[in-house]
Amino acid sequence: MNKLSDMRIVLVRPSHPGNIGSAARAMKNMGLSELVLVKPDDFPSPQADALASGAKDVLASASVVDTLAEAVDGCQWVVGTTARRRGYNDRPLVPRAMANQAIQMASGQLTALLFGRERTGLTNDEVDACHALVEIPANPEYSSLNLAQAVQVMTWELRQAWLAGQAGEADTRVYPEAAALESFYAYLEGLLLGSGFLNKDNPEHLMRRLRALFGRVRLDDKELRILRGIFATLEEPKHRRIGRKRTAAKS
Amino acid sequence: MNKLSDMRIVLVRPSHPGNIGSAARAMKNMGLSELVLVKPDDFPSPQADALASGAKDVLASASVVDTLAEAVDGCQWVVGTTARRRGYNDRPLVPRAMANQAIQMASGQLTALLFGRERTGLTNDEVDACHALVEIPANPEYSSLNLAQAVQVMTWELRQAWLAGQAGEADTRVYPEAAALESFYAYLEGLLLGSGFLNKDNPEHLMRRLRALFGRVRLDDKELRILRGIFATLEEPKHRRIGRKRTAAKS
Repeated sequence: MNKLSDMRIVLVRPSHPGNIGSAARAMKNMGLSELVLVKPDDFPSPQADALASGAKDVLASASVVDTLAEAVDGCQWVVGTTARRRGYNDRPLVPRAMANQAIQMASGQLTALLFGRERTGLTNDEVDACHALVEIPANPEYSSLNLAQAVQVMTWELRQAWLAGQAGEADTRVYPEAAALESFYAYLEGLLLGSGFLNKDNPEHLMRRLRALFGRVRLDDKELRILRGIFATLEEPKHRRIGRKRTAAKS
Repeated sequence: MNKLSDMRIVLVRPSHPGNIGSAARAMKNMGLSELVLVKPDDFPSPQADALASGAKDVLASASVVDTLAEAVDGCQWVVGTTARRRGYNDRPLVPRAMANQAIQMASGQLTALLFGRERTGLTNDEVDACHALVEIPANPEYSSLNLAQAVQVMTWELRQAWLAGQAGEADTRVYPEAAALESFYAYLEGLLLGSGFLNKDNPEHLMRRLRALFGRVRLDDKELRILRGIFATLEEPKHRRIGRKRTAAKS
């Protein structure tokens, strides 16, 4: 079972410092403290401080980084807040389900919750880097939460899940870090290109489907190693495979 | 069962017009529209309009009244948002329980949800006028939600309770029948035995893990066909694969 201190809020390219301050205030009220900013337009800023009110410590300890990869470094679960779909079978989670999963992960495994730009949200590439998506089911006729309001809803649900989860069953599985998953996808893409399965002119289409599939299943560490072992074996020329002892299949 | 249009948000003596605007934006996003203001310091106001963003219609139709009695006129349930206790065994509801009760009331009965002044909240007299109290369980070490953030949390919970009362979003995916999955597992087992990946003496152990993995992901029809396509390609001798057109990758 996780703590609220295992939750990282990542604001990707926020443009208004007031939103950063309001987000920090929402976070601290809900018991979160880890804020990462990817290339903010204007930070630090007196306006952010003013809207943070008593949560200036969250701003003071916030990390400012240049890339999304740095922002999610060391995180086992990367969740993007978005209304954008990748198309393939990846209906976003509702906030409550996301919060429950994040809290139920085995202790000490980090969740990064991403929020995109005020006007345009997360880009396709950023969405592709997510293991799961979450969407706030707002009024279909007016779905325009401000950035800090979205942070408020999500952190509220995380706190609720954490409060409730002082009861429920813990998820004891150990998950790979984001970089290990990326390395698996890169390997798989190379393998499928080499085998002729992927269309060289447009490999992204199918790779996005596979990312959605493996994102949904939430591979744990052992499963990831098994899959790599399977593909590595199938990749070898047949005359070398046969009769050889496999070490990967031990687990 | 009630609708969100049966919920009235009452702001008692708000001093900052920006908060009124942000509250309206939060309301509209969550599908609420009925706003009543008791003696606001500064309304209407350009700042309220600015922060309401696309929810200016909520401000335009807001009622401005002089007394709390007028604000709750016609309401069957009056709930005050407060951390103040009246003392007599009246532990406040948590927002989720409040929202469920408000929605579950028989159709057409109105709930008024009261929010007090930014600095001092509701007075004792105003609390006494409430049928129930609700409190947002925030971080005990920093419990200082801004007025609009409190409105956001409460209206979010009202919307969630209302959505839960409706049917969930339909799952439109097409799943394979059990036999098709079994056939995939049998094929995979044969392939992994043939490649030397599976231990011939005890293939069940690893197959069980793979079943658990694919069971968890709930493969749909299309995904199952893609996976079969991938494994079929990798199974072929390399000299036959290369340069060949894949039909399986079309999907």
